[in-house]
Amino acid sequence: MPLTPEQQSKIDQARATKRETLRATVPGMEAHLYRAHPVLDHGFVRVVDYMGDDAAITQAARVSYGKGTKKVTNDEGLIRYLMRHWHSTPFEMCEIKLHVKLPVFVARQWIRHRTANVNEYSARYSILDREFYIPAPDALAAQSDVNNQGRGAVLEGAEAQRVLDILRDDSGRAYDHYQDMLSQDGQAGLARELARMNLPANIYTQWYWKVDLHNLFHFLRLRADAHAQYEIRVYADIICKITADWVPLAYAAFEDYRLGGVQLSSKAMECLRRMLGGEQVTQETSGMSAGEWREFEAVITNHEGSQ
Amino acid sequence: MPLTPEQQSKIDQARATKRETLRATVPGMEAHLYRAHPVLDHGFVRVVDYMGDDAAITQAARVSYGKGTKKVTNDEGLIRYLMRHWHSTPFEMCEIKLHVKLPVFVARQWIRHRTANVNEYSARYSILDREFYIPAPDALAAQSDVNNQGRGAVLEGAEAQRVLDILRDDSGRAYDHYQDMLSQDGQAGLARELARMNLPANIYTQWYWKVDLHNLFHFLRLRADAHAQYEIRVYADIICKITADWVPLAYAAFEDYRLGGVQLSSKAMECLRRMLGGEQVTQETSGMSAGEWREFEAVITNHEGSQ
Amino acid sequence: MPLTPEQQSKIDQARATKRETLRATVPGMEAHLYRAHPVLDHGFVRVVDYMGDDAAITQAARVSYGKGTKKVTNDEGLIRYLMRHWHSTPFEMCEIKLHVKLPVFVARQWIRHRTANVNEYSARYSILDREFYIPAPDALAAQSDVNNQGRGAVLEGAEAQRVLDILRDDSGRAYDHYQDMLSQDGQAGLARELARMNLPANIYTQWYWKVDLHNLFHFLRLRADAHAQYEIRVYADIICKITADWVPLAYAAFEDYRLGGVQLSSKAMECLRRMLGGEQVTQETSGMSAGEWREFEAVITNHEGSQ
Amino acid sequence: MPLTPEQQSKIDQARATKRETLRATVPGMEAHLYRAHPVLDHGFVRVVDYMGDDAAITQAARVSYGKGTKKVTNDEGLIRYLMRHWHSTPFEMCEIKLHVKLPVFVARQWIRHRTANVNEYSARYSILDREFYIPAPDALAAQSDVNNQGRGAVLEGAEAQRVLDILRDDSGRAYDHYQDMLSQDGQAGLARELARMNLPANIYTQWYWKVDLHNLFHFLRLRADAHAQYEIRVYADIICKITADWVPLAYAAFEDYRLGGVQLSSKAMECLRRMLGGEQVTQETSGMSAGEWREFEAVITNHEGSQ
Repeated sequence: MPLTPEQQSKIDQARATKRETLRATVPGMEAHLYRAHPVLDHGFVRVVDYMGDDAAITQAARVSYGKGTKKVTNDEGLIRYLMRHWHSTPFEMCEIKLHVKLPVFVARQWIRHRTANVNEYSARYSILDREFYIPAPDALAAQSDVNNQGRGAVLEGAEAQRVLDILRDDSGRAYDHYQDMLSQDGQAGLARELARMNLPANIYTQWYWKVDLHNLFHFLRLRADAHAQYEIRVYADIICKITADWVPLAYAAFEDYRLGGVQLSSKAMECLRRMLGGEQVTQETSGMSAGEWREFEAVITNHEGSQ
Repeated sequence: MPLTPEQQSKIDQARATKRETLRATVPGMEAHLYRAHPVLDHGFVRVVDYMGDDAAITQAARVSYGKGTKKVTNDEGLIRYLMRHWHSTPFEMCEIKLHVKLPVFVARQWIRHRTANVNEYSARYSILDREFYIPAPDALAAQSDVNNQGRGAVLEGAEAQRVLDILRDDSGRAYDHYQDMLSQDGQAGLARELARMNLPANIYTQWYWKVDLHNLFHFLRLRADAHAQYEIRVYADIICKITADWVPLAYAAFEDYRLGGVQLSSKAMECLRRMLGGEQVTQETSGMSAGEWREFEAVITNHEGSQ
Repeated sequence: MPLTPEQQSKIDQARATKRETLRATVPGMEAHLYRAHPVLDHGFVRVVDYMGDDAAITQAARVSYGKGTKKVTNDEGLIRYLMRHWHSTPFEMCEIKLHVKLPVFVARQWIRHRTANVNEYSARYSILDREFYIPAPDALAAQSDVNNQGRGAVLEGAEAQRVLDILRDDSGRAYDHYQDMLSQDGQAGLARELARMNLPANIYTQWYWKVDLHNLFHFLRLRADAHAQYEIRVYADIICKITADWVPLAYAAFEDYRLGGVQLSSKAMECLRRMLGGEQVTQETSGMSAGEWREFEAVITNHEGSQ
Repeated sequence: MPLTPEQQSKIDQARATKRETLRATVPGMEAHLYRAHPVLDHGFVRVVDYMGDDAAITQAARVSYGKGTKKVTNDEGLIRYLMRHWHSTPFEMCEIKLHVKLPVFVARQWIRHRTANVNEYSARYSILDREFYIPAPDALAAQSDVNNQGRGAVLEGAEAQRVLDILRDDSGRAYDHYQDMLSQDGQAGLARELARMNLPANIYTQWYWKVDLHNLFHFLRLRADAHAQYEIRVYADIICKITADWVPLAYAAFEDYRLGGVQLSSKAMECLRRMLGGEQVTQETSGMSAGEWREFEAVITNHEGSQ
């Protein structure tokens, strides 16, 4: 349960105060505001603020269409056109701010997306809470045999138990020692900025994360992908749902062109054209490497490729 | 008069529709929303959307101050502390979107600030309007004798008239020829993307410009400065007023530490310390070059330095 | 002829001085260094500096592959893998610096790519040269009938002559008046920062432009594209050639996956799968709009789609 | 000792191969190339590549100074002018690439500087080495009594021993368990991307980090500052020395204006002017808060202020 009663009460309070505004509002987002969507065992995602809607995207695109141009089609068609042709600036007109609680090793992946604004809980100033990510049994995956980056079968029985025991014991001991180092009868205790170095990467941190819609889509394309690590993908999945409520037309276009879309090389397109012409093409006659051919076959038969 | 009746009617309509929201709102900004502030002879600045307020800045800063920290002082003190110590990320939590109409040569300076989102009216797709910046008499400055970048005295009488006649005539003729090239009986006319090359840099363009508060302050520090070109400074001045209505505490800190603040080198500080100790310091004994000393003297006697 | 004898002499001098270095060097780029590639009637592109090579990309990618990983394949395979899976950070390890002379209306498109470092010739400080872009006869395109952004047939005969006369006359007159305003017997003349506003968008400017390889590829994908305006595409085409000499493996992957590659939506992939299965698919049964279907057909039959 | 014999041999090999180039070279940087500067107990900083020199900065600045401008002063004066007036783009023309080995908690601070290119060793793909930062006795600081972010006196004797024992024991145990989870007789072992979560923040990671000189200076101003955490400051200090060898004029200006320079508010300047006029000013009559006044006094008497 990620929220303390105090936190829940603050959320209730924030949701009780309605204000009038002349700005664009999105009912779907008003319903999300401040509420915590639980993720993993102690994490959450909360919408704290948002700016713009689908109409803000088309408004920005249409500033280009003044006198002398033909009538642009409807909003949906225009948004699909923008997405298809990588016209990214109109999507930058929308902005979202999230409050996220997440394990440090997830935060380390997440922060690699540089085009966002971040304020993180500081372990230099403050003392971290005793909260650690311990995988649920069905997320306790073995190393893949065929893929350095991937996961294999789920560990079970005694093997699973052994791993969970290690993670729980080490987390607990590391935190006990963190506290021991921080304070000690008769002296100041080790500086917080040093004591934190004893804490493992599954401890939870939190931050405010603000990003425009174009860069959010880029984040989601990489992190809601089947090849992303499960522990960040669950965050991306929730944010996908939120985004669909926020800008339904843009999200649908993103889903069609990016999440579900495919990038094919000129070699791959050449093969496709030969196949459409009735030719039997094999890896040997494709000009592609074994790995590329495997990914190509997966795509045209709609089986998830092994990266 | 920068607005057409159609534009004014759209603004009135947008301001007539109130919505309920759970987000933070700023009454001062609600009063600005959609309204056009005239700038120069045909330009304007309009607030189209905003996100966050002073409290969003302190909220982001305080995410760092959890358990075990002393009570942080009031919002004003915290915001001044953040500004003084260049803690920029909390200011990035606020965002503003403006609609700006401005001459092309101003747009060319403005766009050099890369950390913003922009959608500009496209002269590839669309036909530009016949609107040119012609300086008001008191803005018709001569080249400075002492400063390559600066302005000298204002031109007057016949000299002023001669310049204004050139600017008006050439603008008008360039636009007539732009139209002539665009359309012609019996053929398609020159492509818009080519015909526009005949138009001078004082023609007006427009864009949506979205930026976070930290980067807005950076823009304002450089462009609301006495050394900025007058034609961009008048835009910065209006945006300063808007920002003061949006985030009064942050703007006051910005005014004190950045707009009115001074950066002194270690050499300059050493001189200051000697002067405070009663020593008479001259350029010769200061270790500074003539130019640096001139700027230093201007700063400690509060006379605007010649850059 | 874009270079003055003085400029050429400086280039010869710079190319005469060889130095020893321990850094990676690329013979193909050493041959380019400082030399001017002419573009349009007065423009050029020159390589002024570069950092890194194909090996710098794989070195950065391999920092991820320490103990316990399988041997990564050869450099070419690795670079193709990175490109295929949008792993952009290794490509950011290479950097190039160009000196470019280009018309202002081209510069205005170019500068929209924000992730680069730019120092432009300043018309606030300095006086611009009398050099204007006048299209060659085969670049004098009419407005497309079917596409607001596009070009149609080339203008010919009297129609072409009329347009060229306008462009030449107006450019010359605007520059004469620019000079007249700048200096005048017995007074300082109009400030440079004001006088420049009389100059049309086909005047040449110049800048140093520095960018990493990932962002360069992004620029080239958009600007070496058939839908880019001809006057910027000719610059992109030259830079493509230079890049092929600099990082041949990376450029070949870029050419296959990006320049020649195709992004297909999930709808389009579904149609493809049906067609590969022998089904006859039409726009009506495709679920795509008329525009999307037209682009899809162009792609699978390898005819350039009309954007 | 941070380097393995294999690493040292690679460095020797890289340093043995001289090549000819037409690019600018800096002898001071050639001496640094590839060599490892030790930092902390197992870390290092190595220059892997660089682009540009002091002359590249002035060349970029001078592209603005064409015909009609007065002769710009010498390189040193010009660089100091650029630094004094926050003209940042010429400094962006220089680029440096470093290979850094550093503890994870330091990496987490460092990565907050977004305007750099980074490729980090991946604990998803690869197995981390058994190397942990254990503070030297004189870096084992207690928490400051007066400052949440700061360090107080150094721990000594039994107190120091107790802390060091905890850090060493917990690091060793965490790594043992990491290995135990990774491999296990008769099964694949826990996925690497999961097992890493048991590792504490004092484990070492490494990355390639590439940044332009302007953004490097920004990093150094914040991280070579007395208020930065010691463990990142030692890296910044080494990089300061390297930068002084690379661009001596730019570094000297940076040292004078930024590292040793002071930002004073308009309130502070007003007080200074009164003091220079002979007035006795106290906090009460200054208009400043107690904290601001304390920092102001520290600056004008040259005592390090308590942040």
